[in-house]
Amino acid sequence: MSADAVSQDVPGGSGAVDRDALGDLFGALAYAELTASLQLAVDAGRAPGIRVQAALGRMMTVEFGHFERLTSRLAELGRDPEEAMAPFVPAIRAYHERTMPSDWLEGLVKAYVGDGIARDFYREIAVHLDAPDRELVEQVLGDGGQDELVVALVTEAIGADLRLSGRLALWGRRLVGEAIAQTQFVMVERDSLASLILGGGLGAGLDLAELGRMITRLTEAHAARMQRLGLSA
Amino acid sequence: MSADAVSQDVPGGSGAVDRDALGDLFGALAYAELTASLQLAVDAGRAPGIRVQAALGRMMTVEFGHFERLTSRLAELGRDPEEAMAPFVPAIRAYHERTMPSDWLEGLVKAYVGDGIARDFYREIAVHLDAPDRELVEQVLGDGGQDELVVALVTEAIGADLRLSGRLALWGRRLVGEAIAQTQFVMVERDSLASLILGGGLGAGLDLAELGRMITRLTEAHAARMQRLGLSA
Repeated sequence: MSADAVSQDVPGGSGAVDRDALGDLFGALAYAELTASLQLAVDAGRAPGIRVQAALGRMMTVEFGHFERLTSRLAELGRDPEEAMAPFVPAIRAYHERTMPSDWLEGLVKAYVGDGIARDFYREIAVHLDAPDRELVEQVLGDGGQDELVVALVTEAIGADLRLSGRLALWGRRLVGEAIAQTQFVMVERDSLASLILGGGLGAGLDLAELGRMITRLTEAHAARMQRLGLSA
Repeated sequence: MSADAVSQDVPGGSGAVDRDALGDLFGALAYAELTASLQLAVDAGRAPGIRVQAALGRMMTVEFGHFERLTSRLAELGRDPEEAMAPFVPAIRAYHERTMPSDWLEGLVKAYVGDGIARDFYREIAVHLDAPDRELVEQVLGDGGQDELVVALVTEAIGADLRLSGRLALWGRRLVGEAIAQTQFVMVERDSLASLILGGGLGAGLDLAELGRMITRLTEAHAARMQRLGLSA
């Protein structure tokens, strides 16, 4: 943490959080949104029919818009966006390399279930931010209506071919493991994020009970998403 | 051509062109923009460094925005967008399958050179439209500033490794052949488009001299683009 990175220096709010931690959070989120957007495009290219391609393309542009809002905010904070994202590239790339969808349906489940866990994780961090930045994170983490669409498409596909249910349930279980591993790597990479999530500021120390409650919340939300898809968690 | 597809029925302009021809043009363009957008995302995923990834991602969202504007106009014309696109899916897919970039640089050259030919072709058609639709096509075919960026990135890459020049020149020559084949398929597929391009309306008949002049214009514009990239056409 540099000497000038005190809370008073953050333009536009988030007085309780220092500039380094904010930059880390937005850097991680920005790279996550960029890669999610590009992955959706790959899935769209493999989707059958123009309707699904267009729907996935729309999700892709929504995610890319989030990426652009986050990099704007980084620049406003005086951070070079590329530099702010760099520490998180290995963990996020590894997650995507380890969870390459084998078809567009696995891609959809990943966009809903895998990205859902990541979204919950970043949301847990955001509760400690001041209003403008908390609102930015909440908007960026909003699903833009895509969850409804994913649930509809996946349940429709399972309805047409019940054998898909087992394969996609397995896939969902693999995603939860990899997504949680990813969030751990991100926290280990940056102390500032770990501190943010565990008590609202740097130096608050590791609260193991709080960490356990957070993991419980993430797991419960995951199970609810799987249930909405008609899959056993 | 259905009985009610007379020029007077087209809402919002293009009185000189019947609704079927407009629907065909916008259907072809919309699917071309959708696939170009998704291809850019694939290229972005393979690009080195976040800066180039983000730049390609921005091009991708611009193209997707064009797709959405065209499908809106199709709906306004009373055409189902998916149906309007369907006749052109085979030709446009075949073009992309025959010109799969082997890396992000080939993808960039394709976005500039290959899509450039397609853009010129659709622009030739658009001169016969009335103002609102002609303007829509011109906006959609505008490069959104991406040409500057592509030229900068490609010449930078060639500057760093001169051997790239020969490979990319060959690639450009292959693209021009495939792109011209694609436009011919599109014209053969729909008489209405052939009529539009060759004299501004249905039933104007095939003017071979005009066709020759058009191909000359397309070829000259292609050579100019190759030259801007520092490649021999």
